Amino acid sequence: MLDDLKRQVCEANLNLKRSGLIILTWGNVSGRDPESGRVAIKPSGVSYDGLCAEQMVVVDLDGNVAEGELRPSSDTPTHLALYREFEGVGGIAHTHSTYATAWAQARRPLPCYGTTHADNFRGEVPVTAELTPEALAGDYELETGLAIVRAFEQRDPLEMPAVLVAGHGPFTWGATPAQAVENSIVLETVALMATISEGLTSGLGPISAALCDKHFFRKHGKDAYYGQE
Amino acid sequence: MLDDLKRQVCEANLNLKRSGLIILTWGNVSGRDPESGRVAIKPSGVSYDGLCAEQMVVVDLDGNVAEGELRPSSDTPTHLALYREFEGVGGIAHTHSTYATAWAQARRPLPCYGTTHADNFRGEVPVTAELTPEALAGDYELETGLAIVRAFEQRDPLEMPAVLVAGHGPFTWGATPAQAVENSIVLETVALMATISEGLTSGLGPISAALCDKHFFRKHGKDAYYGQE
Amino acid sequence: MLDDLKRQVCEANLNLKRSGLIILTWGNVSGRDPESGRVAIKPSGVSYDGLCAEQMVVVDLDGNVAEGELRPSSDTPTHLALYREFEGVGGIAHTHSTYATAWAQARRPLPCYGTTHADNFRGEVPVTAELTPEALAGDYELETGLAIVRAFEQRDPLEMPAVLVAGHGPFTWGATPAQAVENSIVLETVALMATISEGLTSGLGPISAALCDKHFFRKHGKDAYYGQE
Amino acid sequence: MLDDLKRQVCEANLNLKRSGLIILTWGNVSGRDPESGRVAIKPSGVSYDGLCAEQMVVVDLDGNVAEGELRPSSDTPTHLALYREFEGVGGIAHTHSTYATAWAQARRPLPCYGTTHADNFRGEVPVTAELTPEALAGDYELETGLAIVRAFEQRDPLEMPAVLVAGHGPFTWGATPAQAVENSIVLETVALMATISEGLTSGLGPISAALCDKHFFRKHGKDAYYGQE
Repeated sequence: MLDDLKRQVCEANLNLKRSGLIILTWGNVSGRDPESGRVAIKPSGVSYDGLCAEQMVVVDLDGNVAEGELRPSSDTPTHLALYREFEGVGGIAHTHSTYATAWAQARRPLPCYGTTHADNFRGEVPVTAELTPEALAGDYELETGLAIVRAFEQRDPLEMPAVLVAGHGPFTWGATPAQAVENSIVLETVALMATISEGLTSGLGPISAALCDKHFFRKHGKDAYYGQE
Repeated sequence: MLDDLKRQVCEANLNLKRSGLIILTWGNVSGRDPESGRVAIKPSGVSYDGLCAEQMVVVDLDGNVAEGELRPSSDTPTHLALYREFEGVGGIAHTHSTYATAWAQARRPLPCYGTTHADNFRGEVPVTAELTPEALAGDYELETGLAIVRAFEQRDPLEMPAVLVAGHGPFTWGATPAQAVENSIVLETVALMATISEGLTSGLGPISAALCDKHFFRKHGKDAYYGQE
Repeated sequence: MLDDLKRQVCEANLNLKRSGLIILTWGNVSGRDPESGRVAIKPSGVSYDGLCAEQMVVVDLDGNVAEGELRPSSDTPTHLALYREFEGVGGIAHTHSTYATAWAQARRPLPCYGTTHADNFRGEVPVTAELTPEALAGDYELETGLAIVRAFEQRDPLEMPAVLVAGHGPFTWGATPAQAVENSIVLETVALMATISEGLTSGLGPISAALCDKHFFRKHGKDAYYGQE
Repeated sequence: MLDDLKRQVCEANLNLKRSGLIILTWGNVSGRDPESGRVAIKPSGVSYDGLCAEQMVVVDLDGNVAEGELRPSSDTPTHLALYREFEGVGGIAHTHSTYATAWAQARRPLPCYGTTHADNFRGEVPVTAELTPEALAGDYELETGLAIVRAFEQRDPLEMPAVLVAGHGPFTWGATPAQAVENSIVLETVALMATISEGLTSGLGPISAALCDKHFFRKHGKDAYYGQE
């Protein structure tokens, strides 16, 4: 059942680890099966060494475990909140990658300072509001997901496949688990570049919306002309 | 005698080296045998290449060598001062890892700016007071340990398994040598993240005590729910 | 046809990847055949894993594909604009390397703060003007090349084999594809060094023109005496 | 002749490369034979890949080539100026390592902010004066050496085995080529740590002379007690 999805999700988790963005067990990737709506996700606190597809845990959109012997990632309710609201998203990645997390800790949205950013993210990457004491004391991981969803009320998650959770770290997504991982890699890189650029020019502003759109739509949408397809 | 402890301590030293936190011979890990109270520690100035369990030196809590051909780490009196005072600590690690050392050199406690920090350290990581000229001229490594102990008069070392020694560098600990090493890795990472976050938002404050506690107790104590146990 | 050039260009692309300057598919190297004037370049969006000489695309200076099954790099019109204007240039490299891109994002020329910079670049590395909305909406990649050419109206591209495209990233060149790649590596390194030096000394000025020229001509031109030739 | 020295010098050059401090061919190590006074050094501009002992060039203290087919490092006159003046120095290393070079570019001495620094360098690492236009136009590499020697008129080069050449980069030395390389590694690391520490605490001062001396003499001189000897 969903063997192909479990294999894709496992491979995406391992690629996230290989990318150097993950220390210890700090990260997880999930994927959604478009037909059943079920989600496969990394088990909680399990080492990346020897991680295999059979260990992936399958849950339904309400979080009930459908397959798997292990407990799913403690961040599963955050992933599910996004899948329930973000149509067309087929994979989600969460990391504590250094620079993206540092921006989340600084509680600042990440400005679009260059075309490297614009190639994957159309504009400023948003930061969530901080959780209220009530949300913290309640269903914390679900509340984290709801805070992300609120940050996208005026945005298209397919044009902005990333968010910074205030005081915590980044989540990214895409049409597939592999795209979610690629967006985590790009986010970390552009967060590093933005940190350096701000240090070099005080009061730096973002690139123009026209340049941002030029690069985003060079790679995405019906008029894309980057690559071989 | 204590072969298992020596093996654990040697493996923890090698993992510390593999983690990239150690340059040359700058670091050491020790472990305590709960029954005898004896401590196994890396020998002084010995290369990590080819380090083996038989080279570990066993001392009693007063520093008398009980087993081993080599001289124990010159930092042994610091380790022993902590074992004498910190109940439940079974392993201690010392590094000169870059960012944690830079904070120690800056003589600043490390604020808790995010959940990555809170997952392992409950609040601000303290910095010791500087040693007096008398302490420097006396039993220097013991005095370093006593300065650490004084920084924990109002703290639980099991909830704050790390300290920055002013002008020197970090010590971390845990229930086992492996946990001490993990805490060194986490400390270095969150020291780096904090450095970046401070540069991004002037006057940045820590996360709320509620969010800090939420994350610390998600992973530690009787109500922990992270991982598979 | 042009098999040797295709091999050189492929090898230069792979060396750029090995140098650590390239993430995902963010970069490309081209080379020019001095006799035919034709240019071989990496195909667009193709992974570096398994990249081989046969995949290189050969175009003429107007951009017509002369050899190859794949679509050439989307940056090809930028490369061609430089080959048409910069005599003696036999190779061009484009990266999104972190520090050089951060300076391009900061829209600042890179000052010559030391001899490491002067060994390869005679003075300040220029930054282009930003493209107008009309240029953005037109033949974007060609316009990028024209903006670079305009930045060199008063400069010799052989003495300054690098440029920062405002809001985008660096291009470097040289007599061969291999030299273009070396200049990308040096540019990234000196951009990092300059970032650190500026943080250490407020209002830092460049080294003297005499020291800059001493180092540049120690390695280049008829009186060069570095190396074995 | 001097086969053992050539082997030591070659190995030290390769270790410098392995340490990650060297990009391209930016660095060289030399060693002095205490009996003949002759110096073996890396050849100029030769790649580290496949570097072998037979390629090392032997020169006398006046720079006359005594053995070897290749041209010696272009920095040879700088090395010889130091050997002529610094008694007890048996090895010298030159790098363009990132942070040490950035401090040299910032034209600032490197303060002793912690015990990591004090373990190898007794106090602030000096920066040379800038060369005059006459010195630049004359025997440049010799003048660089003389500028270093002038910076040590009031210092013992065995207690301060490092210098920053203004606008250029670091030189380090020691009793052997291996010690010179170790000091290059330590200098780069403490230059990085100092950069971070200064960013964390404005107006940071050095550690006390007492703490600095405690650490320097813990590892050096007749009362040293670090290590196994």
